[in-house]
Amino acid sequence: MLKKVDVRYLKDPEDVGLENPIFIEGLPGIGHVGKLVADHLVNELRAEKVVEIYSHYFPPQVMVQEDGTVRMPVNEVYAWKSNGDSSDLLILVGDFQSISNEGHFELVNAYIDIAKRFGARRIYTLGGYGIGKLVEEPYVIGAANSQDVVEELKSFGIKFEPGEPGGGIIGASGLLLGVSKLEGIDAACLMGVTSGYMVDPKSAKVVLDVLSKMLNLEVSVEALEERAKEMEKIIAQIKEMQEMAVQQWKSDEDLRYFR
Amino acid sequence: MLKKVDVRYLKDPEDVGLENPIFIEGLPGIGHVGKLVADHLVNELRAEKVVEIYSHYFPPQVMVQEDGTVRMPVNEVYAWKSNGDSSDLLILVGDFQSISNEGHFELVNAYIDIAKRFGARRIYTLGGYGIGKLVEEPYVIGAANSQDVVEELKSFGIKFEPGEPGGGIIGASGLLLGVSKLEGIDAACLMGVTSGYMVDPKSAKVVLDVLSKMLNLEVSVEALEERAKEMEKIIAQIKEMQEMAVQQWKSDEDLRYFR
Amino acid sequence: MLKKVDVRYLKDPEDVGLENPIFIEGLPGIGHVGKLVADHLVNELRAEKVVEIYSHYFPPQVMVQEDGTVRMPVNEVYAWKSNGDSSDLLILVGDFQSISNEGHFELVNAYIDIAKRFGARRIYTLGGYGIGKLVEEPYVIGAANSQDVVEELKSFGIKFEPGEPGGGIIGASGLLLGVSKLEGIDAACLMGVTSGYMVDPKSAKVVLDVLSKMLNLEVSVEALEERAKEMEKIIAQIKEMQEMAVQQWKSDEDLRYFR
Amino acid sequence: MLKKVDVRYLKDPEDVGLENPIFIEGLPGIGHVGKLVADHLVNELRAEKVVEIYSHYFPPQVMVQEDGTVRMPVNEVYAWKSNGDSSDLLILVGDFQSISNEGHFELVNAYIDIAKRFGARRIYTLGGYGIGKLVEEPYVIGAANSQDVVEELKSFGIKFEPGEPGGGIIGASGLLLGVSKLEGIDAACLMGVTSGYMVDPKSAKVVLDVLSKMLNLEVSVEALEERAKEMEKIIAQIKEMQEMAVQQWKSDEDLRYFR
Repeated sequence: MLKKVDVRYLKDPEDVGLENPIFIEGLPGIGHVGKLVADHLVNELRAEKVVEIYSHYFPPQVMVQEDGTVRMPVNEVYAWKSNGDSSDLLILVGDFQSISNEGHFELVNAYIDIAKRFGARRIYTLGGYGIGKLVEEPYVIGAANSQDVVEELKSFGIKFEPGEPGGGIIGASGLLLGVSKLEGIDAACLMGVTSGYMVDPKSAKVVLDVLSKMLNLEVSVEALEERAKEMEKIIAQIKEMQEMAVQQWKSDEDLRYFR
Repeated sequence: MLKKVDVRYLKDPEDVGLENPIFIEGLPGIGHVGKLVADHLVNELRAEKVVEIYSHYFPPQVMVQEDGTVRMPVNEVYAWKSNGDSSDLLILVGDFQSISNEGHFELVNAYIDIAKRFGARRIYTLGGYGIGKLVEEPYVIGAANSQDVVEELKSFGIKFEPGEPGGGIIGASGLLLGVSKLEGIDAACLMGVTSGYMVDPKSAKVVLDVLSKMLNLEVSVEALEERAKEMEKIIAQIKEMQEMAVQQWKSDEDLRYFR
Repeated sequence: MLKKVDVRYLKDPEDVGLENPIFIEGLPGIGHVGKLVADHLVNELRAEKVVEIYSHYFPPQVMVQEDGTVRMPVNEVYAWKSNGDSSDLLILVGDFQSISNEGHFELVNAYIDIAKRFGARRIYTLGGYGIGKLVEEPYVIGAANSQDVVEELKSFGIKFEPGEPGGGIIGASGLLLGVSKLEGIDAACLMGVTSGYMVDPKSAKVVLDVLSKMLNLEVSVEALEERAKEMEKIIAQIKEMQEMAVQQWKSDEDLRYFR
Repeated sequence: MLKKVDVRYLKDPEDVGLENPIFIEGLPGIGHVGKLVADHLVNELRAEKVVEIYSHYFPPQVMVQEDGTVRMPVNEVYAWKSNGDSSDLLILVGDFQSISNEGHFELVNAYIDIAKRFGARRIYTLGGYGIGKLVEEPYVIGAANSQDVVEELKSFGIKFEPGEPGGGIIGASGLLLGVSKLEGIDAACLMGVTSGYMVDPKSAKVVLDVLSKMLNLEVSVEALEERAKEMEKIIAQIKEMQEMAVQQWKSDEDLRYFR
């Protein structure tokens, strides 16, 4: 049985033994900037998967993988223990955000509950900030849930422009900041400026750069460009097929109305 | 954890010590007339915030403020203790109405529960009544949940025209009247006639005038025009950006369908 | 507090003391045929209101009445005790069907629970069957939840044409038959053939005729035509205003997205 | 009272006494391939109905049958005891998939619970794979929830092409594989390649052929073509009428907004 929000711990937080980890979120979103950076971190750091999250708020489907096996839509949390120079990390990556409005809130409640169980002391959410035109020199703009954290981000060169992003921050990247504020956890959102038209590894690179500095991490950015190309290819392919599948499913809806 | 309708008391109703207060609602709506008046009252009276209401029925996003910090969508109740010449007041203001049909009912249940806990003896909801063309001399039309209150409103010059508003009163301003009737609480809705095309301080002024008379309040209307201009500016700005953000978010939806 | 489906008994079913009553449903629907007939019955028989049903599945609004007072959307059950020549009756009339798919099921559950509490032994649902063109000589087609009841209806001249209505029966009139079948209660739907383009008193008249014969009731049909004219007028008026109200409300939605 | 997902056992699983049955799903979907095959199996094997599933996630309507009686939308599970040469079977057929996203998950939870109560050791879901053009020689492509099952399917000539179906498998056929994987039950989906434009008996035949081989079943395919023709005819007829009914219902929606 799959619960509405079904959080499955692969390891007990105590056994993982992270010390005051920083929780990083990189789910799909604008330009896939956040997802690119977070997936990259999980891979480069060889972080360990510790939680799987299934949900009725994800699309009602399975994905078919190259080898013919299927898998459920899932979001995952990975743990990484630092050697001491950096913070320990919890990294949330995955397939989907909620496909309903209310689901966003229930999923974010679950993410924050996970963060707390691992003793997280801070949350960084990663995303893109689309400006609707090509960006020559991408940079990172920020938002945070306290004035102190705003100042801290500024000291790392992150830009704050009054009234940006004016439309607010939609989805998990935004709600995580808002709800964690109510819970007394510091949180910030790092947004790579991007056109918003495609997967943007250049924007992801500047986000990764500043995040690494903030975390005192050393992470190669080599694979990032390649990962983006691959992602772009897969997306194009899948979008085409998905459209076909959904269209057929829809055009078939009338047919379902009979016996 | 954020509950579906999450009511947080900043102060115990008993400690606030209002006596038979009047509950005033001014949430966003047609012409923003109700919101203008209620925000204005909160400011002019320097009322004290006593309740915050968060909800899964608000949009799944946070707003970014001028200083780079974020805040959750929230509705708030302010308390004001009169010096004796007027009634004590509870004023409900905020960012949003429910974005789902069913959410309207759950939020209104919560508003009425708050009103009751503070011992409110009457409810006034404020709104605009859009007529689709410019209004030279705005006036106030009313609706109430008992014949007695209708007569009382008439005695203050509030207009009642048979069959208006014909479409009923949609959202919190309407449901508060209906549900409070079932709870045995007197309630009325004051609607400033407005074009419905923009934030309308002239309409807000006539609503404020009659409300002040009814409450025996003295409130300056000076700042109202200015407040409306500011609101209009912010709305224009935010609408533009919001559209961009939502479009990107939507156009990005397909991208979310993969890993 | 208003529950999702809020059933309020004005009188205890035992005190009403109906004997094996027949439950009749006439909610708004195609051509308003069912509503016309059921409203007419309630008026002509001077039936007594015994239950009110409020619901989150009705539209989030109140209606403003001629005298300036408001009322919640509500469905109602009326009881009528026969003098012995006819069956006792329970008549369900009201403002709305559910505005969500799932709400239909929850409301029908409530209606059947009410029917059972009053000891109803049979259910008749009333509706229109729209054929998309003007009908010179309207007649009544039927559907029932058992073969026995089908035969009984035929004996009263109700028509059964194989495969009609082909699209099934949507909403409360249909679901009441289906769910009561699972509960072991006989039920039938009487549909007056109608164009479907307007409130149709001629169609209502033939439904009322056959229903009266089946119930051995004597009910004047005089007022029916008049009632329909009035209904048509009110609908036209309200539709116009409702459209205006809803449009403004919608066009105002962006405005709600700010503070 | 009808529960959200209302599973009604006509017989106790123990009394049915199936031994490690295989659970087969054939609900409406692309080209109605899965439904055709599963309905055919139920008929040819004269399987016995053991479970009925009603749900708020099906459309809020009843279907009217040729004889004038109505029936609720329902999905059904049939049981078949083999004579020993083949596996025992549980076959899920029915009218509808969920009409809401979240309903898919709740229904699939129920299907898997049923499978487990009957001791099912494996699940096969049947469907169509639409390619948007006519298919001369239909064949079967597969997906499974473990590498072992993939290999097994290959040994029966079922095709696996990397990245197909690229859009994933939507609805019960997909989710059953995903959720059963989490429950430790082997499962596979057999998809007959089809245009997706109509009920496709040729595609159903190749699915039935390979399924029979896998199950060591002997089932005549004679009736399949005829069944498809009949289905096609009924669908055309019903679609036409359904459209009329739904249009009238919708065009009548404004009318419902008044009393």
